[in-house]
Amino acid sequence: MEIKIALVGLGNVGKEFIKLIEERRDLIENRYGINVKTVSIIGRQVSIHDERGLNLNSIINSMDSRKGLQQLPYPVKSGGYQGIKASNADIVVEATPTDLNTGEPGLTNIKTALSSGKHVVSLTKGPFVVAYSEIMKLAASNNLLVKFSGATAAALPTMDVADYCLVGTNIKRIEGILNGTTNYILTRMTADKIPFKKALETAKKLGIAEPDPTLDIKGYDTAAKLAILCNAVYGTEIMIKDMPIEGIDTIDISDIHRASQEGLVYKLLGRAFKEDERVYAEVRLVKLPQHHPLASVNSTTKAIRYETDTMGEIFVTGGASSPTGAASAALKDTINIAREFTRGS
Amino acid sequence: MEIKIALVGLGNVGKEFIKLIEERRDLIENRYGINVKTVSIIGRQVSIHDERGLNLNSIINSMDSRKGLQQLPYPVKSGGYQGIKASNADIVVEATPTDLNTGEPGLTNIKTALSSGKHVVSLTKGPFVVAYSEIMKLAASNNLLVKFSGATAAALPTMDVADYCLVGTNIKRIEGILNGTTNYILTRMTADKIPFKKALETAKKLGIAEPDPTLDIKGYDTAAKLAILCNAVYGTEIMIKDMPIEGIDTIDISDIHRASQEGLVYKLLGRAFKEDERVYAEVRLVKLPQHHPLASVNSTTKAIRYETDTMGEIFVTGGASSPTGAASAALKDTINIAREFTRGS
Repeated sequence: MEIKIALVGLGNVGKEFIKLIEERRDLIENRYGINVKTVSIIGRQVSIHDERGLNLNSIINSMDSRKGLQQLPYPVKSGGYQGIKASNADIVVEATPTDLNTGEPGLTNIKTALSSGKHVVSLTKGPFVVAYSEIMKLAASNNLLVKFSGATAAALPTMDVADYCLVGTNIKRIEGILNGTTNYILTRMTADKIPFKKALETAKKLGIAEPDPTLDIKGYDTAAKLAILCNAVYGTEIMIKDMPIEGIDTIDISDIHRASQEGLVYKLLGRAFKEDERVYAEVRLVKLPQHHPLASVNSTTKAIRYETDTMGEIFVTGGASSPTGAASAALKDTINIAREFTRGS
Repeated sequence: MEIKIALVGLGNVGKEFIKLIEERRDLIENRYGINVKTVSIIGRQVSIHDERGLNLNSIINSMDSRKGLQQLPYPVKSGGYQGIKASNADIVVEATPTDLNTGEPGLTNIKTALSSGKHVVSLTKGPFVVAYSEIMKLAASNNLLVKFSGATAAALPTMDVADYCLVGTNIKRIEGILNGTTNYILTRMTADKIPFKKALETAKKLGIAEPDPTLDIKGYDTAAKLAILCNAVYGTEIMIKDMPIEGIDTIDISDIHRASQEGLVYKLLGRAFKEDERVYAEVRLVKLPQHHPLASVNSTTKAIRYETDTMGEIFVTGGASSPTGAASAALKDTINIAREFTRGS
């Protein structure tokens, strides 16, 4: 079966996604019977399309040499949501930068995709933080699927575990280390006894922290992922502004040192539970005893723990924290949507 | 959408499955839009059927009081595979006892289900150890799904993580603690410094070890689960007889004591990897350093670790080791089959 894809957004992860899909073409066809064809690449200003499938190799080369989409031998159309409208893709992969306040441009892109009959795979958090139920209702009313592993810790399966592996259980509690950058900084502060600023500098040098790391170190990235997970798991819309949120920039090396002496480890946790139909969610910098499963999750590694009623506790850790890991999560969502929609039809 | 279910096998897990499905009827309908109806209960000798849905409460009471299916106010038909033929279920839940040598009666039951147009959820390992590719080919040629979480560590998601969360990656290595009974015994021997026989007795008293624990302690249960995972992940048929298999009954308390002094922990691992199109799989009693993620998986808890090429390593642990946990895994498979087959149709 043939699946036509449109990619929106040409950042690092978008590029990795195109490379991965080109490299895995045979694997995807042989293993899952899916013939993936990338028919549209959509930037902010312009988009290119070819119903027979774009030549991804030349596009990858052009992106690597920082030439724009205009330089390629394809007729150019409008970019952004107009490019999505113009595409005849089955699945839109949304990979524009995240804005946690407005959700844009991802939100308009996703609504446009769903309104024009296209499934959505999102690497962008903003839309789901701002308008989770609106998006899901729009998808349901059009009999379309929306998957967003790339927006909820990517290669660490958080959504998939809740939505597929734990189906039919009641999830009583969610707890996780959902941000690699802050976990890296805390790990360095603990292991090497260096202050926050120095650990942050190192993280920046290694490309782990972004040039402006505010969203990570203030806890907002963790809060965004937790909010999306809560919305998906508990079916209640929680906004970031409704959560108590702590960051890691207030912690002093002496606090960490004192905790170590007591056998405790500082971790930035996203936590949520449901009681009497109300969902409580928070991002907290907490001291964990060393035998706690989250205490030994170090460096850029992330982890999640679900407490259920009939399956006990499930703890998942790992997943590459890299553009390839994120692209691979989007590829997974793409294949799973394709598989689910070809069953029974 | 309505989904009609047939349960084959009335052991502890079968009973728990019926209780769970009755208790979760509203949850399944509200959350997933699936109206589950149990239309057949199939024992070894006899079966009962009702297209409008059996009265599960009276069946549960009858099972609890050890009365047979014959005592119930339903006409009785033949049991076993003939009961499956006679059923008009959409999904057959296979919960008969496991035989790792012949795969029967599960194998004939599953083939009968698939040949008569019914999806399969299996809690039984035997059929997949004996005839994995035969079953999968039969399912594919009839456009039917087969899921077997209950045969591959149940509430610990092993198959689902490989087949859903890691879709599109290449799994380079599989490594896991796949048997709760042996892990419990090793944990007690290590922590309480008691010999194998005493730890086994305790496990029997607590209902953790079966009256005849041979399959567990000789490593065959681990081998069976590993073989099924290998067949599913690598697409090559591996038989238990092709694997080097160690058990835990040869280990002496002095070995464990000596390892502890060296900072090492004994664990029974199932391990597999693929190289040059050949799959290598084995069950080994190995000494792990204490910081190894599998070293701190204790008591009846199980765990699995996948090494992938594009998503890094994924480590999963937990999952209730109980009839309820197993029944819940079968319920999950049932719901996931129902969801996959209603998409797109």
